[in-house]
Amino acid sequence: MSLARRAAAEGLGTALLLAAVVGSGIMGERLAGGNVAIALLANALATGAALVALIIAFGPRSGAHFNPIVTVALVLRGDAPRAYIAAYLAAQVAGAVLGVLAAHAMFELPLLQAGDKLRSGPAQWWSEVVASFGLLFVVLSCEKAQPWAAPFAVGGYITAAYWVTASTSVANPAEKLARALTTTIAGIRPEDVVPFVLAQLAGASFALLADRALRPPA
Amino acid sequence: MSLARRAAAEGLGTALLLAAVVGSGIMGERLAGGNVAIALLANALATGAALVALIIAFGPRSGAHFNPIVTVALVLRGDAPRAYIAAYLAAQVAGAVLGVLAAHAMFELPLLQAGDKLRSGPAQWWSEVVASFGLLFVVLSCEKAQPWAAPFAVGGYITAAYWVTASTSVANPAEKLARALTTTIAGIRPEDVVPFVLAQLAGASFALLADRALRPPA
Amino acid sequence: MSLARRAAAEGLGTALLLAAVVGSGIMGERLAGGNVAIALLANALATGAALVALIIAFGPRSGAHFNPIVTVALVLRGDAPRAYIAAYLAAQVAGAVLGVLAAHAMFELPLLQAGDKLRSGPAQWWSEVVASFGLLFVVLSCEKAQPWAAPFAVGGYITAAYWVTASTSVANPAEKLARALTTTIAGIRPEDVVPFVLAQLAGASFALLADRALRPPA
Amino acid sequence: MSLARRAAAEGLGTALLLAAVVGSGIMGERLAGGNVAIALLANALATGAALVALIIAFGPRSGAHFNPIVTVALVLRGDAPRAYIAAYLAAQVAGAVLGVLAAHAMFELPLLQAGDKLRSGPAQWWSEVVASFGLLFVVLSCEKAQPWAAPFAVGGYITAAYWVTASTSVANPAEKLARALTTTIAGIRPEDVVPFVLAQLAGASFALLADRALRPPA
Repeated sequence: MSLARRAAAEGLGTALLLAAVVGSGIMGERLAGGNVAIALLANALATGAALVALIIAFGPRSGAHFNPIVTVALVLRGDAPRAYIAAYLAAQVAGAVLGVLAAHAMFELPLLQAGDKLRSGPAQWWSEVVASFGLLFVVLSCEKAQPWAAPFAVGGYITAAYWVTASTSVANPAEKLARALTTTIAGIRPEDVVPFVLAQLAGASFALLADRALRPPA
Repeated sequence: MSLARRAAAEGLGTALLLAAVVGSGIMGERLAGGNVAIALLANALATGAALVALIIAFGPRSGAHFNPIVTVALVLRGDAPRAYIAAYLAAQVAGAVLGVLAAHAMFELPLLQAGDKLRSGPAQWWSEVVASFGLLFVVLSCEKAQPWAAPFAVGGYITAAYWVTASTSVANPAEKLARALTTTIAGIRPEDVVPFVLAQLAGASFALLADRALRPPA
Repeated sequence: MSLARRAAAEGLGTALLLAAVVGSGIMGERLAGGNVAIALLANALATGAALVALIIAFGPRSGAHFNPIVTVALVLRGDAPRAYIAAYLAAQVAGAVLGVLAAHAMFELPLLQAGDKLRSGPAQWWSEVVASFGLLFVVLSCEKAQPWAAPFAVGGYITAAYWVTASTSVANPAEKLARALTTTIAGIRPEDVVPFVLAQLAGASFALLADRALRPPA
Repeated sequence: MSLARRAAAEGLGTALLLAAVVGSGIMGERLAGGNVAIALLANALATGAALVALIIAFGPRSGAHFNPIVTVALVLRGDAPRAYIAAYLAAQVAGAVLGVLAAHAMFELPLLQAGDKLRSGPAQWWSEVVASFGLLFVVLSCEKAQPWAAPFAVGGYITAAYWVTASTSVANPAEKLARALTTTIAGIRPEDVVPFVLAQLAGASFALLADRALRPPA
């Protein structure tokens, strides 16, 4: 497929992923009646289950990165051409924003919102470094070597990561940016986005180093 | 297998699926004591788990569509003969109705009920367009290319879709119709069925277009 | 492996399965503080997850039937020698009883108990016919044709069946018998066992007929 | 890969596993508002989901034992060289401790804590024998014969084991030791560690015997 079509697939998949993340967050919050643990359980399970489906569906079409740092890391490791970066990142950001808007429309909420959840501070940034390290290491372990396992590895990883990190991170800059557009449970204040993205880049860099040091013989 | 046998398998699988959807809805509602989030968690997990089992069991026998729009879309893409449509649709609708009756009998409820849950309005129709688009896109991605992955992709997709859309949609006209026969949590008012089916057809049409535009080289 | 060793494996696997069913039922009941829906969610997820592990581990050793009606049905279809029946059934019943005792010991409960949960009546028997039909149909669909899928199909099926049937059935006579030895959430009154076993045999018979009628060409 | 690199991978994977076990325990406890069942559900699902991801990622790099008794058992069965033991055990213990510290840092808790949860007595030791027997038996069944299945078998087993045993055991000495360093829900009193490790060794020994007795012909 041409790069334009691959990028279009990437954007579509990212939109569906964000609709799942934000939509299940809204639904969980509405139904759980203040019990945040049950809302987060629904949010984590729905996101993980959606990832299994979406990575299976979009893997053969675009690689199913759905995440700028995944694209950049795969290019740096030589798994994807450098020319992918601009097109994929633009598609991921656009797709993520459209996915948030689609979720708002499904629940009759104002389409455009400014996130107001304060998510900041060293503990949350450290969480994001760890979460991004783990996600990238898992992705780099599946790509090329065992692609059939990626939907289960990434779906499982993200389901767990909702519970493991104080930032309920998904280690994804496009998602972080899009979440700054919602005041629902998945939201984040716009001014908190930049430090998170820096933390994600740090985690991803460590993952590339660890992957190279610990790679099994081909 | 002859078409008659394939259609019979399709009807049987659809009946078991609807028994799972409606049965787990009733059980969840009874046990959760008013906590709708926990009832929906049980309903979503039971439906997804049942789909994994039923698609594995019925895939080699009938293709395990369990859904008129899946059958129509696969015929339109050329994956199944046109002659399948009438037989499969009749079997799916009959199976779905029998599955609802079987669930009512398991819980000592009146066999015939008229759904009374108001599910209507633009937000719910939009939800149904999105949900149907996603389901069909996932199905079209697995069929032929990676059939082993279909149980996990579709089971994961539907588990998530319960939480993502305001309509707790399953993007399935046969199921919608059958749900008009129950007053339990899974029910729907009969007069609300038609707009949902139109929304499902719209979503499925978009999925066929997107699948063609973004299909990887064979 | 000799039949004696296969039967020993079968008994060991059945013991671990019953320990999981009864143990997670006790733990769920203790922790959920009267919220039966959450206790059942834990019970269903733990049983399904245990089945994935146990069928993977015991499949190559004994076939991982863990259930008298599965053994009998596979013999009737010609997939296992007739000589297996006596040894397997004895091992399954002994294993199931030992598994219940092991669970009681883990939770410091009296080892021997007489089940007192009333589970009876036409709706529950009908539930058991449906549940047994579905389980056997799923098993017959995996055996020989797609053995790698059996852990996921059976694990998914049983997770769903906890929620779908009014009897929280697992469609397993050895388990039913063993559950008559516990007063915990998984228990059943001894005098209620026989009708359930008859319902299970009826469901299994229908499954053998349906499997033969709807079997895909080899 | 050299043994040093394999051991480094083993330590890294164990650290991520412990961060998931302890982190999801802290988050579950914080959000569940005293409802221990929901906290344990989150803890069990997050741990199982993390194991699926981590075993897929680290399996080709180090074997993904994450557990001293797994390493020792595989060496005793002849699946790994004897020289692995010292390096792997040191890496697992160091990794487990670092993982606990990483989790504490993510939630702004004191890095060094002394576990204070009393977990002792014959019922808990018996639970640990059973849990370790089952875990080792599952691992020995996957290793070499069906490595692709290990992530699902072990992830499923541990998810269930949280609910099945009164000790919420994970049958892992490195983890037990590391848990003595946390006062959060996953903690344990240091003086309770030794009997648990003895129980784990007993369970593992039984598993090696059972595996040999019931091994299918190669």
